[in-house]
This record gives sequence, C-alpha cells and structure tokens, in this order.
Amino acid sequence: MKEISPLQKKRLGYKPILPKILENISNLEIEEKEKTASLGDEKELKDLFPNTFGAPIVNFKKSCSEKEKKPLKVGVVFSGGQAPGGHNVISGLFDALKKLNSKSLLFGYLNGPSGVVDCKYLDLTKDLVDGFRNLGGFDLIGSGRTKIETDEQLDKSLNCAKDLKLDGIVIIGGDDSNTNAAILAEYFKKNKVSTKVIGVPKTIDGDLKSKEVEISFGFDTACKVYSELIGNIAKDALSAKKYYHFIKLMGRSASHIALECALKTHPNVVLIAEEVLQKKKTLKIVTNKIADVIEKRSKIGKNYGIVLIPEGLIEFIPEFKVLIAQLNKLLAKGEQTEIELNKLKSGDNKIEYIKNILSKESKTCFEHLPKSIQEQLLLDRDPHGNVKVSQIETEKLLIETVKKELKNRGFKAKFNALNHFFGYEGRSAMPSNFDANYCYSLGYTAALLINEGLTGYMSCISNLHEDPENWSPKGVPITSLMNLEIRHARKKPVIKKTLVEANSKAFKFLKENREKWAIQDLYTYPGSIQYFGDKEITDSIPISLKMNNIA
Amino acid sequence: MKEISPLQKKRLGYKPILPKILENISNLEIEEKEKTASLGDEKELKDLFPNTFGAPIVNFKKSCSEKEKKPLKVGVVFSGGQAPGGHNVISGLFDALKKLNSKSLLFGYLNGPSGVVDCKYLDLTKDLVDGFRNLGGFDLIGSGRTKIETDEQLDKSLNCAKDLKLDGIVIIGGDDSNTNAAILAEYFKKNKVSTKVIGVPKTIDGDLKSKEVEISFGFDTACKVYSELIGNIAKDALSAKKYYHFIKLMGRSASHIALECALKTHPNVVLIAEEVLQKKKTLKIVTNKIADVIEKRSKIGKNYGIVLIPEGLIEFIPEFKVLIAQLNKLLAKGEQTEIELNKLKSGDNKIEYIKNILSKESKTCFEHLPKSIQEQLLLDRDPHGNVKVSQIETEKLLIETVKKELKNRGFKAKFNALNHFFGYEGRSAMPSNFDANYCYSLGYTAALLINEGLTGYMSCISNLHEDPENWSPKGVPITSLMNLEIRHARKKPVIKKTLVEANSKAFKFLKENREKWAIQDLYTYPGSIQYFGDKEITDSIPISLKMNNIA
Repeated sequence: MKEISPLQKKRLGYKPILPKILENISNLEIEEKEKTASLGDEKELKDLFPNTFGAPIVNFKKSCSEKEKKPLKVGVVFSGGQAPGGHNVISGLFDALKKLNSKSLLFGYLNGPSGVVDCKYLDLTKDLVDGFRNLGGFDLIGSGRTKIETDEQLDKSLNCAKDLKLDGIVIIGGDDSNTNAAILAEYFKKNKVSTKVIGVPKTIDGDLKSKEVEISFGFDTACKVYSELIGNIAKDALSAKKYYHFIKLMGRSASHIALECALKTHPNVVLIAEEVLQKKKTLKIVTNKIADVIEKRSKIGKNYGIVLIPEGLIEFIPEFKVLIAQLNKLLAKGEQTEIELNKLKSGDNKIEYIKNILSKESKTCFEHLPKSIQEQLLLDRDPHGNVKVSQIETEKLLIETVKKELKNRGFKAKFNALNHFFGYEGRSAMPSNFDANYCYSLGYTAALLINEGLTGYMSCISNLHEDPENWSPKGVPITSLMNLEIRHARKKPVIKKTLVEANSKAFKFLKENREKWAIQDLYTYPGSIQYFGDKEITDSIPISLKMNNIA
Repeated sequence: MKEISPLQKKRLGYKPILPKILENISNLEIEEKEKTASLGDEKELKDLFPNTFGAPIVNFKKSCSEKEKKPLKVGVVFSGGQAPGGHNVISGLFDALKKLNSKSLLFGYLNGPSGVVDCKYLDLTKDLVDGFRNLGGFDLIGSGRTKIETDEQLDKSLNCAKDLKLDGIVIIGGDDSNTNAAILAEYFKKNKVSTKVIGVPKTIDGDLKSKEVEISFGFDTACKVYSELIGNIAKDALSAKKYYHFIKLMGRSASHIALECALKTHPNVVLIAEEVLQKKKTLKIVTNKIADVIEKRSKIGKNYGIVLIPEGLIEFIPEFKVLIAQLNKLLAKGEQTEIELNKLKSGDNKIEYIKNILSKESKTCFEHLPKSIQEQLLLDRDPHGNVKVSQIETEKLLIETVKKELKNRGFKAKFNALNHFFGYEGRSAMPSNFDANYCYSLGYTAALLINEGLTGYMSCISNLHEDPENWSPKGVPITSLMNLEIRHARKKPVIKKTLVEANSKAFKFLKENREKWAIQDLYTYPGSIQYFGDKEITDSIPISLKMNNIA
C-alpha cells in the first residue's frame, strides 16, 4: 500500500461545494441563450465548422418533470501541462455521470491525446477515482502534448469512439486543446458519429479567458503557491537586507500570473510583458527602469528587493522578437544556415557564425547578450528548431544588464542579486478550495452537456466571484472563442489567447500602486495555502478575478 | 497602514502552547542537575572559560513559595541567517519578562551583533511585538553576520550593556553565534559586569544538535516548505513523465535537511554528504549511482524522477575537498598566484593558468568540470578569497556528469533534466505550529534563566516528540557543547556541528527504503503547511526527530 501524507488523506475526504442549481440534476433542462458567432473571421470559421458553428450559449434551469436518464459512456483526457484541479474535473464528471444513471461508465484515455488516437484507456472505477479526489497532478491517467490534427489521427480517434460506443469525450486542456476539441466535434458530427465532444478550460497561465470563461482552472492554486514563495523571499530580503531577488514566473506569453502574484505580494518591480510590447520597451528601457528603482532605494539605505519577471517577457521586447524570429528562420531544421552551424564544433565559432548572418539590428542585440544567453539561444531548440523561450534565463539576463547599467552610472552601493524560477512547483500542487470546487463543477457541467446531446461546447462556470452556491454553470460553443491566426505560415482556426489588458481594473490597480511598492517595503505575505478554518482564508479567489469581475 | 494578508492576520492571534511547567512562573525555581564538562579539549576550554566552565544543567521545578520578582532589562539580538520562528523567541521572551514583572523592559539590538557592539537598539513595546507574533523573518529588528571577537568589540559590547544596565542579553543564532554568546558571557563575568548572556539554538540546517539540544528552531518549517515543493514537483514528474528534477537543498555542510525532506517525500535518489565522505565516494561514483537508477527506471519505461542534493555535497566529495582547499590557498587575498590570476582578463586564460598550477589530482578533477563550474570556482569568492561553496551549482554539475555517463553507456532513452535550488524560500516562512510553540518556549525559558542569574547557558527544550504540554525547558552550559577546532590555522573553541550519523534511526530507515524508492514511484505529497484543523496535520514534528527520539 502506498503511503500518503496526513494532508492528502484528509483532502481525499473533502466534499467540493456545488452550485445550488446542480444539487439536483434529475430535473434540470437546458435553456438556450443568445446564438454565438466567433471573435473574428466569421465567414471562414463557418466554412470550417459547418456543423457546429453558431450554436447558442446554454444555461441550466429547473424543469417541472423528472426525466429518466439513460446510462452514458464517456471518455476523458488530459491534454498539455499540468494544472491543479484536474483530478476534480474527473471526479465531478464521474459523480455526475453516476448520478444521471448508476450504469454510466467513465474511461480515462492514457497519457494525453495519443490515448484518444491509439484507443488506450483505463476504466475509471469508483475506487480509482476516490484515490485522487482533491489531489494535484494528472497522474491518474497521465497527460501528453499530441495534437489530433491529421486525417489519420482524426479517423483513428473516431473509430475508437465508435468501438467504445462513447456518448461523449471530455478534453481537459488549454487554448490549443480546446481548439482540438472543436475540430474533433465537427469531424464526428460531419461523419455522423454521435459522440459529443466537450472542452474544459485548463491552464495555470490564465490566458484562456473571455467574457464567458472567467478564468481557467489551476491559475488560482499556482498563483497561491508562487505567492507563498515570493512572500517568503520578500520577508527574507527585508530581514537580511542584502539581496535583490529576481524571480521569473511561469505563464508563457501572458503575464496574468506575474500580475496576480504582484497583487498578492507587492514586489518592488513587476514587469508586465504586454505593457513592454505595447510601449515598445527595449531591453535598455526595461533595464533602466529596474536600475532606477535600485538607485532610488539605495539612496534611502535599501540595497535589497524583489523583482518579478514573467516567463514570456523576452518575446515581447521588440529587438528580441525580431532576433528570435530571425533565429527561428535561420536555424529551422534543414535550412542551409542550420546545417552550416551544426558543422561548427565550438560554441564560440557558432556564436561568431550567427552574428555575421544576422541583420544589423539583431546583431547588435545579440552581441550585447551575456555569453550564456547567446548559447541558450543557439543550443536549446525545440524539435521544430524554434528557440525554447521558456528556457531562456531572462532572470539572469536582467541581473547582468542591470549590473552593467549600475556600473555605468557609477553606482557605489552593493548590488547582490539572486535568481529564481517558479513553475513546476505550482503546476501539480494540491488544488486550493477554489480550484477544487471550480473543477468539480466543471466536470459536473461537462457530464450534463453531454447528457443534453451538445457538442463542440466548453464547460464553463460564471459568477465565480460569488460563493460557489451561486455559481452559474453553462455551455459555451468553442467556435465562439475563435478567430484565424497564422501558424507555421498557414491560417488556422485558434482560440484567441487573452493577454493582460491595459484597461483591466487589476492592471490599473497595479499601475496606481507600483511607484509606492517600488520604494516603500509594502510586501504582503500570503503564506501557505490553507484548507481548513476561516473561509476568508481557505476560499479566497484570485485578486485579479475579483477586481475585474466586480463592477 | 501596511496591508497584511488574511493568514498573517489570523496567525497574529495564535497563542503558542507552553509546557505545563511554564504556565505559572511565579513559583518556579531551578534544580541543578549533573555538572557538565565539554565535548573534548576539557583542559584548554577550562582555561579559556575559567568563570563559566563546568556549570550544571538546570531544570525548573515548582517551588512552595512565590517570590517577588524584580523587573529585568534584557537585550535580544538575531545573529546569522533567518530561520522561521525567530519572532516567537522574542514574543516568548517579552511575555515572560512582563509576567515576571510588568516593569521589565526588552530592547532589540538592530541588524545583528553589530547592534550589540555599536549599541544600536529599539525599545520593544507590546505594540511592536504584537505585530510580529507567529510571523516569519527577522525583520522586527533585522539580523547580521558580525562576529564579536576582538577586544575592542567585546569592550564596546560590555560598555553598552553597562550603560543600559542590562540584566541579560539573549543571542539567537547558530553554532558560531552561540560560541560567541559563551565568549561574551565569560568576558562579562571576568569583568564583573552582571549582564547575563543566554543563547538560543537557531538554524534551519539542523546541525546545532546534541543530547540536550534535540533540534534547532526553524528546521521543521524550512523542511516543510521544501518538502511541499519537492512533493509538488514529484507529482508533476509523475504526471508529465518526461523530466528528471535535480533539486539542491540548503543546509550547508550537514545533510539533515536533505534527509528530512527525503523521509517526507520518498525521492528516487537522495545524496547524503556525510555518507559520501565516509565512503570516500568520488564524483564518478556519485554519478554512476544516479546513472544506475536512471537506467533501471528506463528499463521499466520510466524516464522521469526526483534527485535530492544537499548543498554541502561538493565539499564532501574527496577530490573536490582537495581541489577547493588548494584553490582557497592559491587564491587567498594577497597570494602571488591570486595577483597573477587577477592580471588575466579572459575567463579562458584564468582557467588555463590555474589548471597548470594545481596538483595532478586536482588538475584532473578541475579539467573534467563543465566550464560554468570552473568559472564559478574562480570567480565567485567570498571576502576571504574562499570558494563560495553554496553558490556552486552542484545540481547542474551532476546533470552534466550524469548526461555524459549515460552517453558513454550507450543509453538510448531520453534523459531530460531540470534543476532547482530551494533555500531562501523556506528561511523566512511563517513558522509551523511546532516552530511557533518551540520558539515561544525557548524565549520564555531564556527569560527565566536570566531571572535565575545564570550566564553562558543555552535555552533548551527537551522531550520535543511529546505534546508541548509535556516539554521540558532547561538550561545547558554552552561550553558543554564545545571542543577546539582549527579555524584559519588557529585552535579555536567552537560548538561542534552535528552531522548526519550513519547509525541514527532516521538514516537507517532511509537506507532500508531507498532501493525501493529508487524504482517504484512511492512519492508522498506533504502539501502546504496547515495551521488550522487536525492536530495530526498542524502539529507534526520532523520525522527524523521523531525517529531518533523514540526508543
């Protein structure tokens, strides 16, 4: 028998709170609300999704009569990176299916979408599901990054669904995975296969968001874990008074995580990548901004502090954007320049070679980088030959550029900096009560959407700033979140990523306070996630969600 | 008004549990137990501490009569790195002093021992103390690393104590700081100054430990924070199934933290530096051991896992020990070789220069290191010219050597590794209930020892594996923990660091289980520190403490 920790044991027994409307699902019916279009490119998307485009948003309401529900067979899959709460989507789905009809069955596709294609699955029994309630990770069935795109993949997925006589497939994933869900839904419908496909909005990054999708699951817990650590480090900085901590935070292109963590901890500097892009801030400008804060603080005797850096920052700095695009092109698999580069043995020669084939602007940018970053740009590339942006040590880069800048300014005080990167620490954490409740409701709602025969929908909950009892489950057509974007030189239907908006209340609040936070030490210390005791502590929701949702 | 988090607010109101014996301190008296000697070098230590050596251990017992207690004036100081619970030593001290006599005063020396020397202090009022109860960090009064060693420093400290008419000074620190406390106590007594000096055992490293000192404070909380993160990462590794995470843990020379975290999370590999030293394991042997586990796991389809590395490891690998000692000598400030090295501009030239003046054995070791580590060994040096061992990225070094070894073995599967270092994340965390209670009792006891007129004592609590009500507060002469060691080529009195013992029950348990943990995925997930709810969760004590203390 595998040993589990006392907290795991206790959390296994936590009963997630359901919205009142879901308390009795035997007498629910759907209510069609407004018909939807798409975020853009309506005509093209209608052509791409002739069978599923333009469906209405649906709510649930009480019906007068109780209908007999037939047993359902559903498959569920995790797609992409871990996010806290995934197992609760499964337990919510499982419980709702069993409540609809105790003969319902739930299968878990193994190791991500490749399991859907290759028909590898696990029969999810009550015993199995009960062992993962309210726990972190995706380890009950694993996850993966395969995309179901080719005709062969679509066909194999379809045949598996047919063989298993599935009433529905639930795809738990981010923007790309939900796009995939829409494509699969359309493909099944076109081919007259009755399996419905429902998406569930997952990503710690918080960029899968819209009017209807208030937040993706996992964001709350991940931000709470990172903020616990940032707060601890701020407390340490304030006690030791000798280090600047440059902390990079996961979150890919969007800076939602950095913003939320800043609202929770009040660091001296937080960079918001979207603002860097919008205001065309060069590396020089970003560096100066940090150096300014360090100088000002030093004048009042403070040679310590906290700087938060979003993972995606580097892609939003104009000259890097250009440099990375050029490198991706020059070093794409099979390009002559890539072949030449790989012939060279020493790192120095590679750097020299590349320098001389870059554009003048990119050459200047490249030349001014520390050698370790130059090497990262050339060596650590993904299977497509693209620069692995997430592995560029932006936090170290900024320490170097700031150090140089301070030296140029004749800064006399001490500047000692330490770097941190928080990402994997939060992706598989035990979900907060918010994520535990939210995910359970998302899973529950997914089951109900399948039961209603809907497909190409995303399971959504709105009203999240209220108590869970008052949350509103709904179904939103995935195509309504889409537009066309150019990917690998081709126009593709995609769910539009939502970045940090300049006019959001949360970002405005940051802007109003950051000058003060820069100089005064107004750090707040959220501490570790609490599961028991005061609701104000255990059931808190993301600050940015609260700010943006309350009028 | 500074904003505080809901958890901070709630924790401010937590009432630490006192041992029953301390519930009413108006009728306590001390009971002298066995006289003490030292851990070694008795004669020399007796000569160095003629006025304080050989005192007895003292307990507290109920007395029949209540004595009127006179008001006390006490100064308190934090020395060295942060450890969770420091503020509770202060609040315990404050509350006990006020309980003894409401006219008692507590002063906080500012920014560490330099405050003691320069007589910089803060009057710690109830309002101030109340704002820091049960919170992390040392920020109420700051900390520092000054050592009070020279005659001038000792004199200035003495004059300040005389000016303030202090009855006592409480020094909250690690082994070196408690040695300092003993020296100060002896100096005061020799000079007929009545100020008593009491030490409090602080350090997350857990190496300040003896028969009487069961554990230093802060160790419990820091290990809980690190284990939360290790558990989260293990969960992520198990879900994504594609990364090995090499996690370095703070803790200087001793591997107590790595051992405790391993007992809490069951990683696939944990290196114990003391064992590496004892068995004379070279880097090659350590590398092979990790590579063996990776190969075995790969054969059963597992290309992911968790490797824990203690911060001090590198100093315990025989050839590194020699290399570092040589480098410290060659590059000591003012050495001809140091001057020559600094004349060289490029990193490559420096590396070349050093290589050729090292002994043959050290040259081989140095040559086989990745360049980044070579540079760290030469560039990042402390003010004395010593290699900053804590900043050597051992976790990256091992990833490199393991990668090479696997390649040599013709390993065909994937080996993707990520590195982490956890240290600052835990040093200033909000103390666990254990550390909150323990520190409060330590502070309380320190006040009582001063009230009894004892000096050169360490405030100690034993029986820590029982409920706090049954804990036994006591005073232990600091000299009884000492021996002589060679520091900077001179014999000095020091408190002996306690390393992980090969025969301790905790280490034996690890040895019995690690083969199993290596292959099976038996990770446990402690989750975040809980402060409310089940006592089994909120009031747990370190596993190693429990194992080693219970017969």
